[in-house]
Amino acid sequence: MPVLTDVKRLYTCPPEARADDVGEIESAAMVWREGRVEWVGREQDLPVAYADEPEVSAAGLTVVPGLVDCHTHLAFGGARADEFTERLNGTSYLDIAARGGGILSTVRATREASEELLQVNADLLLCRMLRRGVTTVEAKSGYGLSLADELKQLRVYKRLAQTSRQRLIPTLLAAHAVPPEFSGNRDGYLDLICNEILPAVAAERLAVFCDAFVETGAFTPDEARRVFAAARGLGLVPKLHADQLSDTGGGALAAEVGAASADHLENISEASIRAMARAGTVAVSLPLATLVLGVEPLPARELMEAGVPVAVATDFNPGSAPVADLPLAMWAACVRQRMTPAQVLRGATTVAARALQLHGSVGSLLPGYHADFVLINSSSVETWMYSFDPDAIWYAYIGGEVAYDWSA
Amino acid sequence: MPVLTDVKRLYTCPPEARADDVGEIESAAMVWREGRVEWVGREQDLPVAYADEPEVSAAGLTVVPGLVDCHTHLAFGGARADEFTERLNGTSYLDIAARGGGILSTVRATREASEELLQVNADLLLCRMLRRGVTTVEAKSGYGLSLADELKQLRVYKRLAQTSRQRLIPTLLAAHAVPPEFSGNRDGYLDLICNEILPAVAAERLAVFCDAFVETGAFTPDEARRVFAAARGLGLVPKLHADQLSDTGGGALAAEVGAASADHLENISEASIRAMARAGTVAVSLPLATLVLGVEPLPARELMEAGVPVAVATDFNPGSAPVADLPLAMWAACVRQRMTPAQVLRGATTVAARALQLHGSVGSLLPGYHADFVLINSSSVETWMYSFDPDAIWYAYIGGEVAYDWSA
Ligand SMILES: [Zn+2]
Ligand SMILES: [Zn+2]
Repeated sequence: MPVLTDVKRLYTCPPEARADDVGEIESAAMVWREGRVEWVGREQDLPVAYADEPEVSAAGLTVVPGLVDCHTHLAFGGARADEFTERLNGTSYLDIAARGGGILSTVRATREASEELLQVNADLLLCRMLRRGVTTVEAKSGYGLSLADELKQLRVYKRLAQTSRQRLIPTLLAAHAVPPEFSGNRDGYLDLICNEILPAVAAERLAVFCDAFVETGAFTPDEARRVFAAARGLGLVPKLHADQLSDTGGGALAAEVGAASADHLENISEASIRAMARAGTVAVSLPLATLVLGVEPLPARELMEAGVPVAVATDFNPGSAPVADLPLAMWAACVRQRMTPAQVLRGATTVAARALQLHGSVGSLLPGYHADFVLINSSSVETWMYSFDPDAIWYAYIGGEVAYDWSA
Repeated sequence: MPVLTDVKRLYTCPPEARADDVGEIESAAMVWREGRVEWVGREQDLPVAYADEPEVSAAGLTVVPGLVDCHTHLAFGGARADEFTERLNGTSYLDIAARGGGILSTVRATREASEELLQVNADLLLCRMLRRGVTTVEAKSGYGLSLADELKQLRVYKRLAQTSRQRLIPTLLAAHAVPPEFSGNRDGYLDLICNEILPAVAAERLAVFCDAFVETGAFTPDEARRVFAAARGLGLVPKLHADQLSDTGGGALAAEVGAASADHLENISEASIRAMARAGTVAVSLPLATLVLGVEPLPARELMEAGVPVAVATDFNPGSAPVADLPLAMWAACVRQRMTPAQVLRGATTVAARALQLHGSVGSLLPGYHADFVLINSSSVETWMYSFDPDAIWYAYIGGEVAYDWSA
């Protein structure tokens, strides 16, 4: 039963709390047993029962819950660095897609890639994320767009969940785009998703969530409803890419179908904000994607004021957000979405866990929660975000075990 | 005479070239002698004369010139993390200043700080910058605002120039703000700058440049002209904080006084752009400051199209840009200023060197230049900026010697 002592500040990030309540404890201590937090509080209040337990000194560092990246497209083939430069030069996404770039180029490369190659690349990314303090990662399919290739992506996640140190939460995103072989036959692709892909995924327990990209040019709200109905019947919980490029009522749709989260929301309407607040749907903000695309972020402060919890995630993907750096997304959420350091800390821990329906076990440092935590060389979360140094993250623990050690 | 071999790509960044010409050489080699580049080119063209020289393998890494941070406020007392959060919460800078925050709180803390404390803190920052590949750093005074305290800041830079591994270029910025003891007596403070501070700085050779903050609420163009005239008479070259919050004709003033650079320029006029293009004045963009302040960046593409070279710097300071991370500023210049990776690489190497009038010796990898270079674990500058990983910087050399080794 290790006892963590000499903590400058510890943030428990309680699940039920105001948007800026991070449960700050100065001069804290924490005890865990069998991978779960048993006691947390001020060091001076540490019960004598723990007096003889082995001590781990935090040496004055600050402790936050392990970060939760609740929206990534982790495994894919190929890279699109050329496209990044082209877009900075003003080439439109449509022109890039017309010459064979964009999402369909990633679909081609993902289909061509072996399961082994996808796994090796995703594993490197997980290591990179761990160095940034990320201990739980959601990972979407959606670059296969066929029965075999969606299963291939999800099987990579299943194997990574067994071999990697982080907690991995898989999401089926077959409704990401209509693949070329179904152009002119959208219903045929929806049939494939509902009648073949979803049942196969459910049978192998390959995904917890079922996501859909609801957007002009992608899928309509009614098409998404059909996919979500089939998913619900098989025990998968809806998630949405919603209102990214235009207001399609995606936020309200997420509320209607009981989605765990609605993600993006750059163009959300006031009606959708109210619907999400009533339903308790999490809004997932993706500040790196809005930076890369050069568009305005979602109205984070309006959402929070309306009572919608706002998570922060990377949206890591080879097109609009090729940067696997959740602390950078948190910093960007501060400066671009005018969220405070406390709000982004909640957004990347307990609120992100809620977007994955893990807020009873992950994302907070309270008795019963997994002992997933990060030690930061900074005196507070305010100072950490203020002086934003990637090298400030010194250690990450998962289930009470050291998973990343800066000095090793 | 070491020979660097096995370079994936090397970017020479020639000083006289188009805004996106980075002098890319695939499968490159480079030879240096006594700290200066002697030969650079394709490895297959390496002259036989170097065949017996000691080889240093780059192991397939990419080589760029050492990064040049041409605008920092490196040494100061105190920190302003509280203010960062207050501003995200919508408190205005005027309200923060009214309760004793803002620049004058840094002036108070800098005056109270010992030279030793300032030096220790600045040295830590230089180490952090070195890990990010920065081998040359400009450093401004401007938080002393008295004879003794401006000299104190500049003496810190003089000692750091001797003890630190980086090249340090000091700038006097006494004309940063009117200190409280001269409120109501602006001319008295200008007299102090021109008649006492500047002569003392020149006598001790404590600064190369003389900067001024030309802005409503700071100094007028005419006041700056007076300071620059005195500076020129003592051999210091003008630099300007120009057109940051409003168009005060700062760009044109920089051209008029032959400034090495005009920095900020978020509100520059077309007339000022034309004047800078004619005079060859460098525009220094500060994308981290615009992100933190939540304002639009300078018109980088318009400036480049008009023929104005655009540098990229951090503006590192405790208020508007507390992040000492030049690669992050480069990435932000890509996504916010829509500059390409090639343009930001030039902007943080040879163009930045031009802003410091060092473009004959620093910022390019050509014969005669200092052998300052960085080895990056990325296949190209496009890929580096695209997937933006702080850990991609593996080694930094200054004057041909290893100054930073990721594995050490
Ligand atoms: Zn996404
Ligand atoms: Zn500045």
